[in-house]
Amino acid sequence: MDRRSFLTKAALGGTTAAAATALAAPMYAQGNRTLTLVTTWGRGLAGVHDAAQRGADMITAMTDGQLTVDLKAAGELVGAFEVFDAVTSGQADMYHGADYYFVGQHPGYAFFTSVPFGMTAQELVNWYYHGGGMEFHDELGQIFGLKSFLGGNTGAQAGGWFNKEINGPEDFAGLKFRMPGLGGEALGKLGASVQNLPGGEVYQALASGAIDGTEWIGPWADEKAGFQEITKFYYTAGFHEPGSGLSLAMNREVYDSLTPSQQKIFEIAAGEAHQHNLAQFLSNNAAALSRLQAAGVKTLEFPDTVWDAFGKAANEVLTDPAKMGDELYKNIYDSYYASMKSSSAWIKLSDSAYTAQRDRVLG
Amino acid sequence: MDRRSFLTKAALGGTTAAAATALAAPMYAQGNRTLTLVTTWGRGLAGVHDAAQRGADMITAMTDGQLTVDLKAAGELVGAFEVFDAVTSGQADMYHGADYYFVGQHPGYAFFTSVPFGMTAQELVNWYYHGGGMEFHDELGQIFGLKSFLGGNTGAQAGGWFNKEINGPEDFAGLKFRMPGLGGEALGKLGASVQNLPGGEVYQALASGAIDGTEWIGPWADEKAGFQEITKFYYTAGFHEPGSGLSLAMNREVYDSLTPSQQKIFEIAAGEAHQHNLAQFLSNNAAALSRLQAAGVKTLEFPDTVWDAFGKAANEVLTDPAKMGDELYKNIYDSYYASMKSSSAWIKLSDSAYTAQRDRVLG
Repeated sequence: MDRRSFLTKAALGGTTAAAATALAAPMYAQGNRTLTLVTTWGRGLAGVHDAAQRGADMITAMTDGQLTVDLKAAGELVGAFEVFDAVTSGQADMYHGADYYFVGQHPGYAFFTSVPFGMTAQELVNWYYHGGGMEFHDELGQIFGLKSFLGGNTGAQAGGWFNKEINGPEDFAGLKFRMPGLGGEALGKLGASVQNLPGGEVYQALASGAIDGTEWIGPWADEKAGFQEITKFYYTAGFHEPGSGLSLAMNREVYDSLTPSQQKIFEIAAGEAHQHNLAQFLSNNAAALSRLQAAGVKTLEFPDTVWDAFGKAANEVLTDPAKMGDELYKNIYDSYYASMKSSSAWIKLSDSAYTAQRDRVLG
Repeated sequence: MDRRSFLTKAALGGTTAAAATALAAPMYAQGNRTLTLVTTWGRGLAGVHDAAQRGADMITAMTDGQLTVDLKAAGELVGAFEVFDAVTSGQADMYHGADYYFVGQHPGYAFFTSVPFGMTAQELVNWYYHGGGMEFHDELGQIFGLKSFLGGNTGAQAGGWFNKEINGPEDFAGLKFRMPGLGGEALGKLGASVQNLPGGEVYQALASGAIDGTEWIGPWADEKAGFQEITKFYYTAGFHEPGSGLSLAMNREVYDSLTPSQQKIFEIAAGEAHQHNLAQFLSNNAAALSRLQAAGVKTLEFPDTVWDAFGKAANEVLTDPAKMGDELYKNIYDSYYASMKSSSAWIKLSDSAYTAQRDRVLG
């Protein structure tokens, strides 16, 4: 769907929705409803599926049977990348996914997952709740007929799995590498042949040689995906997704038909799932990394020359005139970087200064 | 109240409560109730009062009038340090506060706020939700008749306000300094005369010279408290509270009388308030620090010799045989440090490695 045709549909849909809501709300308020939640994740995919399930379960538990959220994983009702259209068209009520899959709908969606050389998970939360991020997410949702909240986070993602060591930016030339979002666009500037595959399809592509390498999430989720069975070169820090937010989105007409307390439950369940999920990833990654190393995986860090090239490419992608020409994208960009600068300055003086001293003293 | 007399009362209270609950629950389920929330914070105290208010408001909003949480700030019903006894005795239904104020009730409560040289906020959340922390919090709650969840976080706290520069550990000798919890106990080992005052009383004590210095929270909350009007030496990183959790606790009999959906709303509202509040502190601190510096405040970092002394004193306090002799304290201690070691190892390889490269490249 292109944006122009969508805007026309949304304008028409809005009128219909207002009428439908006025009639339907009292019935909804009395009766029990089942809401269908489609996701961009294969069933059981470590961490990301869990975040969707937690959001669903908490809404069901808190509404005492008024709302039952029925989760359909990728492929069970629609494919991973079809969830956005499924929910905006009303085929499903909600989706859980990474919004950067939908930069084709609007480039501004990238900021609600992660952008290369962008915010860590904590910086994202600071911006989202106290720096205008949530309001921009809602502005995007108004265009497409969605009500969206952050509802999960993977933390800083690992640099990924390679079939060789990376000694300089030239090693990316011709490399067939799976990386979605603006990170992938940046990697393309280094000459890589970038692929965007949903999580459930990555293992097979790597095993068959259709791709030479992939990033996925981090040690815990990557281990469960089994990439260590295929290749042994693992870069722990990456530039492409320094703290990826996952979104819990609802069709806006469905949202408008909920009671105020049900709307608040949806919002707070999403927010709590964000925190719970981020902690889940971070608390599982260290143990998983030890297991991967014991299984012969070689953990590496990119050299400075590669980080320099990443930084240059990321900046080109983010300030691309084709994107910056969109006023909403530009406004989100400005807000995001102002908040990042402020957040990071304080975190460096407090959290980082503390942990550096703690680690020095404790040895 | 000492612990022995409490345990006796709790055992008696438990029987009465079970009978009362069986009779009262159906009425509760139908009717609307007001729950009184007492706090350890003066009304309007930046950040910490906000966390209590958010938890209260979200419970009220999500239960659609079934539960209305009525917040009474410190001094409005009971004093700041009396909230624990007020809730365990049933005088109030809930409290919001820093659990390290209640190390006299049980030394294990320190871990649910912050301990010197302990976890950052993110490490605390990892442990709480995925490393056994929440279960230990509940085990403490079972002793005293509380159901507690994390419900706020200040982030890493600033080293504090001093009437002179600190050039070595010997400069703490004889210094009258406000610092609660085990951090204060550690500071006492450096020869400081340590005071534990509630937030609402600190400004007056500093202004009158009753204390020579104080830590409070960080630039934003400290600026609102007005300490910059009295002294100009401000240490940004501190050892004593590297990520202070705030608790939202409910009388356990009251909790048991709630419906399952109301119980879940209480739990998820607390969790969401934790995330929202941490982001509030972090997103406000950088701008506040700039204002403080513009107003002539000199920001400083403790020298390594002071951090070394802090580390030694913190370890002595935390492994004090009088505390370690308590089996529950020992179990919490072991669980906490195992989780911290694991969390911090991964965060160093991912988040910290990334931000170091980002800051280097972006300049």
